[in-house]
Amino acid sequence: MMLALGIDIGGTNTAYGFVDIYGVIHAKGSISTLGHSTVDNFIEALHNELTPYISKFGHGNIAGIGVGAPNGNYYTGEIVFAPNLPWRGVLPLAELFKNIFALNTILTNDANAAALGEMKYGVARGMKDFIMVTLGTGLGSGFVANGQLIYGHDGFAGELGHVIAVREGRKCGCGRLGCLEAYASATGIVATAEEWLEQRDTITLLRERKGKISAMQLHKAALEGDKLALEIFDYTAKILGQTLADIITITSPQAIIFFGGLANSGDTLLVPVKKYMEENILNIYKNKVELLISSLPGSDAAILGASALVW
Amino acid sequence: MMLALGIDIGGTNTAYGFVDIYGVIHAKGSISTLGHSTVDNFIEALHNELTPYISKFGHGNIAGIGVGAPNGNYYTGEIVFAPNLPWRGVLPLAELFKNIFALNTILTNDANAAALGEMKYGVARGMKDFIMVTLGTGLGSGFVANGQLIYGHDGFAGELGHVIAVREGRKCGCGRLGCLEAYASATGIVATAEEWLEQRDTITLLRERKGKISAMQLHKAALEGDKLALEIFDYTAKILGQTLADIITITSPQAIIFFGGLANSGDTLLVPVKKYMEENILNIYKNKVELLISSLPGSDAAILGASALVW
Repeated sequence: MMLALGIDIGGTNTAYGFVDIYGVIHAKGSISTLGHSTVDNFIEALHNELTPYISKFGHGNIAGIGVGAPNGNYYTGEIVFAPNLPWRGVLPLAELFKNIFALNTILTNDANAAALGEMKYGVARGMKDFIMVTLGTGLGSGFVANGQLIYGHDGFAGELGHVIAVREGRKCGCGRLGCLEAYASATGIVATAEEWLEQRDTITLLRERKGKISAMQLHKAALEGDKLALEIFDYTAKILGQTLADIITITSPQAIIFFGGLANSGDTLLVPVKKYMEENILNIYKNKVELLISSLPGSDAAILGASALVW
Repeated sequence: MMLALGIDIGGTNTAYGFVDIYGVIHAKGSISTLGHSTVDNFIEALHNELTPYISKFGHGNIAGIGVGAPNGNYYTGEIVFAPNLPWRGVLPLAELFKNIFALNTILTNDANAAALGEMKYGVARGMKDFIMVTLGTGLGSGFVANGQLIYGHDGFAGELGHVIAVREGRKCGCGRLGCLEAYASATGIVATAEEWLEQRDTITLLRERKGKISAMQLHKAALEGDKLALEIFDYTAKILGQTLADIITITSPQAIIFFGGLANSGDTLLVPVKKYMEENILNIYKNKVELLISSLPGSDAAILGASALVW
């Protein structure tokens, strides 16, 4: 049976899976994205990890490699200035993979891969117009219109994370001020918590946490009814909801699908996002756009989507 | 020879043309959109105007009618709550046309029609990813990605005019605050001029104009070096340029093409728009997106685009 190797390179972990044409994952795993001084070392480590599987399935049975990565360019096969990856500059990723694995490799950005995964195997099956939003280290997005992923003329479409949500706002990893990603991402919500804890003299469960607060801890505190945590989610949701209300005017999607660490907060995030989105939306779109959470377990959407690039 | 009847319904005028498959306009003209108490009266007046042409070319030689109109919906054939048209509510326009003209009728929004016109016959020939922006009474837009117009799941995609450009800003015709269209349109720039003339005690050529100032007069004053007029263009360009920088992240277009009354200001508007757009844009898009003016004379882009719906 022919298999595609789907790889999702995230800011922290890199997940992989060997996937058949029906979306069944025959083997999967992950390695750390961090701790490799160069991208060549990283690909070498990934190659060592994957070689036993490739031997087992047979090199001739691997149809190709699909890779989703932040700032991955479908047309050029390059990763270009990804603020959330440890390596700088322009990385000819598809070529490096081809050289080491001797397999045809197709690259796209991680959120585009997740969108393909949802469309083929997940909650977006049958949808022709939707937006995929990944809320991880950064905020990634993939826009599907007329049943097709929008790549843009240069392969860089879908950078919703870098729409300015707050003019002259918080500094973003891209160097500009007030990007959506600086607020609505795991990193962004943690930054809000840290700012507010410093500025405010509030009694809150969050003060008891030791070391750096995580988005998961914020979610737990919100579930426990912590007022500051709830306020932080409300603030994050307001910024995200307002921006989504703006962006819906461009592609008028049937649904927006969330995926990634912060999306695991579920209703704690999505209920207020929905409220602010509807409050700010143009009347012709009111109560039409569904907010959904990816139905694919763990990092499967990204792996499946990356593998779908191959077929 | 088969001809398509292309009709562009604007806030002030309705232009029409009988167009062959090569984009040659065999007859054209216009009537006023205003002064008809109901949409039925308007279509009746248009029918009276067009009957001599239809008789001349032969009803059997008219392949159909393509209509571009503000808030026109491609899927339903309806105009829905168009703030810039004299008739309110939901208007079943395609059906009304079919009944009176006995010709198959396809509707889309005016900016989508203009985008099709530019793609088939104008400056966007050969482009697969671009944005059409019409700067008339309102601000309309048509987004083309992968060589296809984006209609969205409900036919209402491309309402760039209703992205919030200034939070809690000026009241828009849609009832919300701070929409791009409330600033960057013929109406918007005139509103800015009137506000500023009221608030400021500046010596300006604009004070000499009698009655309501027009966008054309503002352009003329700017060309004559009037400081206030230049400042008004700069302010309008800043709001438009910032919003375009945001929106480019969604579809990563090759070009943005401007059309309509305010677009006739040419470089007076586009030079500062380009400046502010580049200042605010994410680095991966810098110096990549062309700003162009429609190359089709007068309202031809909209007529040609509307006619292209038929083929």
